[in-house]
Amino acid sequence: MTETSSEERAAALREEEARPRWTHRHLLGLEELSRDEIELVLDTAQGFSEVSTRSVKKVPALRGRVVVNLFFEASTRTRVSFALAAQRLSADVVDFQKEGSSSEKGETLVDTAKNIEAMGVDIFVVRHEAAGAPWNVARHVKASVVNAGDGSHEHPTQGLLDIFTIRNAKGRIEGLEVAIVGDIAHSRVARSNIWGLLKLGAKVTVVGPSTLVPSRFRDLGVQVSHDLDAVLPKLDVINMLRIQRERQAGLAFPSIREYSRLFGLTRARLKKAKPDIAIMHPGPMNRGVEIAPEVADGPNSLILRQVASGLAVRMAVLFLVAGGRPAAKEA
Amino acid sequence: MTETSSEERAAALREEEARPRWTHRHLLGLEELSRDEIELVLDTAQGFSEVSTRSVKKVPALRGRVVVNLFFEASTRTRVSFALAAQRLSADVVDFQKEGSSSEKGETLVDTAKNIEAMGVDIFVVRHEAAGAPWNVARHVKASVVNAGDGSHEHPTQGLLDIFTIRNAKGRIEGLEVAIVGDIAHSRVARSNIWGLLKLGAKVTVVGPSTLVPSRFRDLGVQVSHDLDAVLPKLDVINMLRIQRERQAGLAFPSIREYSRLFGLTRARLKKAKPDIAIMHPGPMNRGVEIAPEVADGPNSLILRQVASGLAVRMAVLFLVAGGRPAAKEA
Amino acid sequence: MTETSSEERAAALREEEARPRWTHRHLLGLEELSRDEIELVLDTAQGFSEVSTRSVKKVPALRGRVVVNLFFEASTRTRVSFALAAQRLSADVVDFQKEGSSSEKGETLVDTAKNIEAMGVDIFVVRHEAAGAPWNVARHVKASVVNAGDGSHEHPTQGLLDIFTIRNAKGRIEGLEVAIVGDIAHSRVARSNIWGLLKLGAKVTVVGPSTLVPSRFRDLGVQVSHDLDAVLPKLDVINMLRIQRERQAGLAFPSIREYSRLFGLTRARLKKAKPDIAIMHPGPMNRGVEIAPEVADGPNSLILRQVASGLAVRMAVLFLVAGGRPAAKEA
Repeated sequence: MTETSSEERAAALREEEARPRWTHRHLLGLEELSRDEIELVLDTAQGFSEVSTRSVKKVPALRGRVVVNLFFEASTRTRVSFALAAQRLSADVVDFQKEGSSSEKGETLVDTAKNIEAMGVDIFVVRHEAAGAPWNVARHVKASVVNAGDGSHEHPTQGLLDIFTIRNAKGRIEGLEVAIVGDIAHSRVARSNIWGLLKLGAKVTVVGPSTLVPSRFRDLGVQVSHDLDAVLPKLDVINMLRIQRERQAGLAFPSIREYSRLFGLTRARLKKAKPDIAIMHPGPMNRGVEIAPEVADGPNSLILRQVASGLAVRMAVLFLVAGGRPAAKEA
Repeated sequence: MTETSSEERAAALREEEARPRWTHRHLLGLEELSRDEIELVLDTAQGFSEVSTRSVKKVPALRGRVVVNLFFEASTRTRVSFALAAQRLSADVVDFQKEGSSSEKGETLVDTAKNIEAMGVDIFVVRHEAAGAPWNVARHVKASVVNAGDGSHEHPTQGLLDIFTIRNAKGRIEGLEVAIVGDIAHSRVARSNIWGLLKLGAKVTVVGPSTLVPSRFRDLGVQVSHDLDAVLPKLDVINMLRIQRERQAGLAFPSIREYSRLFGLTRARLKKAKPDIAIMHPGPMNRGVEIAPEVADGPNSLILRQVASGLAVRMAVLFLVAGGRPAAKEA
Repeated sequence: MTETSSEERAAALREEEARPRWTHRHLLGLEELSRDEIELVLDTAQGFSEVSTRSVKKVPALRGRVVVNLFFEASTRTRVSFALAAQRLSADVVDFQKEGSSSEKGETLVDTAKNIEAMGVDIFVVRHEAAGAPWNVARHVKASVVNAGDGSHEHPTQGLLDIFTIRNAKGRIEGLEVAIVGDIAHSRVARSNIWGLLKLGAKVTVVGPSTLVPSRFRDLGVQVSHDLDAVLPKLDVINMLRIQRERQAGLAFPSIREYSRLFGLTRARLKKAKPDIAIMHPGPMNRGVEIAPEVADGPNSLILRQVASGLAVRMAVLFLVAGGRPAAKEA
């Protein structure tokens, strides 16, 4: 009915131009993204999060594009989550896993990637036990590369999905008190969360025994604590990392029971926290070790929402690195 | 041309209302289904069985739905059969197998299922070495669960496909004499066949050495025999189960050769049977042990028809648990 | 604008009739194909090679058809290449690999294939460690069979993609001097290349130590040489086969270092070759053994083009065995 005045059109144009664009071919880590870029992914994910609730869970955005899961490390949920995200965008997905592959015959990672790329691949999703491996692939291929976890270094889509989950639960990130509890030293989940949360203005505390939470983490801009009970009262969000039973052999902490007593999130301990504290865990959980079953399944738990967020965030990432125009209009 | 009288319309309506509906979210076992419900699956499968013979083997019934094969036990044909059935309904399929999965890291079955469900899964197809596992999953997820074999308990789609094959070959189930031969005590195929066949009015005899065919099976309503030659003349259908060479170590029977002599279906033994006896085997076969090659490939064998039936039955089951309206119109 | 004269129409018709047709249900080996048939595959591949460069990499040619990768031997690129080729033709693809399959339970290859076929499979892609296995499957199923490598016997799609790559680089095959260097005795890649290249009029020399290049290969119509440096100057194309480190244990050659010194393609050695020599390798490469990294990545290398050719050739093969009408019109 109403005509668009030239003023309004100019304003819309300015807004359009002001809106951040995705300018990267890859998503390798959150350390190298700006606040605007992270928010662009989150906003795009918001648009996609509705798709997964439909009975027809499909949009044609990446029809005829080819996504290859290049996984050199065992994985359940991450691989399945990327596969479902790609299918939901109507892309074709092929899984490449380490077992029974030419990597056993001594072919280098880069040769493997270049060869598979020559078949006409658009996006590689790379998981590797060596820190930096996805960067190495990205330097040598024309396809896009998404880091799905490299050693103890980064796991950017996990960081993004955690932040996406918090933003939806709390309405913001800026100013929130967030603790990450567990084996911070060896955790790529912790690193990606730290980079992303700090850029968006959260205050981050890393918590755990001193063997797992070295004080050098202060250099990243986070607080370091070895006393969960002291930190708990101020927190808006607590992210409980999986404790690797395997590491116990290395004597990083005296015993699982001891770890659990000091750093496990139990119902008793939770009484010291704010009533609306958001509880997160990247999974898979050791119920009864780092988190009590009744806490994992309790009303403050966002754990399953994290998984659902993962789908939306991975759809957004695949969409953006493939050159999709940002945000909800497309979805 | 002819007008539909109000009387005809009322009759059609009555028929529509009288037609059984599928009211279950899951398919867990045949023990818990009614005769009407089993026949509803068989009738729906009849409608789908034609799709697999087309050159374009696709119907759009489950487009955009997500089926996850959650297999904690090795399997070839069942996994492939469910995958093809889902693809033929235009669903997206993701395989989750035990190896290299978070289940190795000690995550519980239910946590694994709930996590994958949070990615927006519509149907889980669950195979597990523990009896009852699919029920356990079903209690904790909102998605539909189809039991693809749980321990020695049930394998309902195998039971349904066997019954579907018999019905197509013989025109009925009611009153047929059916024998199931082999390791009845440990066979989920036997159990699902027994429940289904008895409900549809067949007379069932289980046959094998007493170590593998305990007399307590009489409580289920079947006859128990340890003498195949005595039973053979009356049979309309004989279902030869695979003999597990592995069990021999447990001394369940003296030797493979001895088992084969007493219970193997050879051409010589077949002379005692009715000329039109239907011969079945759930596969994979031990040729020369429980069944002779010339019998497996002979004119009375329905073995490959069973496999083809499996596709149609699994399409029907996926379609019905996903809320599809019954029967051929939809196909 | 211009009318087609009856003369022109008659000429078109004669051309149409003269054009070779694909009359085989399978592609098992190049030994059994005629020159015309090989050229028909290459021409069809030419039509498809453009599809992989589009952003929507899909043609509807095999929509609703089912391709099963029946792989009894580990493989990366061949399995992925066939899967992508089938997806690009809009077929449904299911992978069947040896691990965790009924083949472990002692089921024969033919029983496995017949059973999976009964689910409505159109094309089997078969890789097996036993020479002849795909012929064995082909004799027993109604579906089409494509040999993806059988023992040391044939790997016809590799042969075709090598020839396709050479034809695109050199504009012809007739009269070219081609050497294949390495473990000729055990190489299915060598055999398929030899059959195909000879039929198309190339002159082929096989090169390597006498333990790996027996003189009986002369019976196939190729030249045999144990001196790469002597052969190098005349070559238009050199195809460096992967050297199996595993074989060294069998003392087929004194040491990797010795092999590399005599038969490795280094930059120094390359100076003796024509400046436009085409360098090929079926992958995966042992960089520094049979080929130097700077040669593999140098301007004469067609190695990644081979992989891209593989997609187009495999699309063509799947399309033709499924009964597709030849050549570019369809693509």
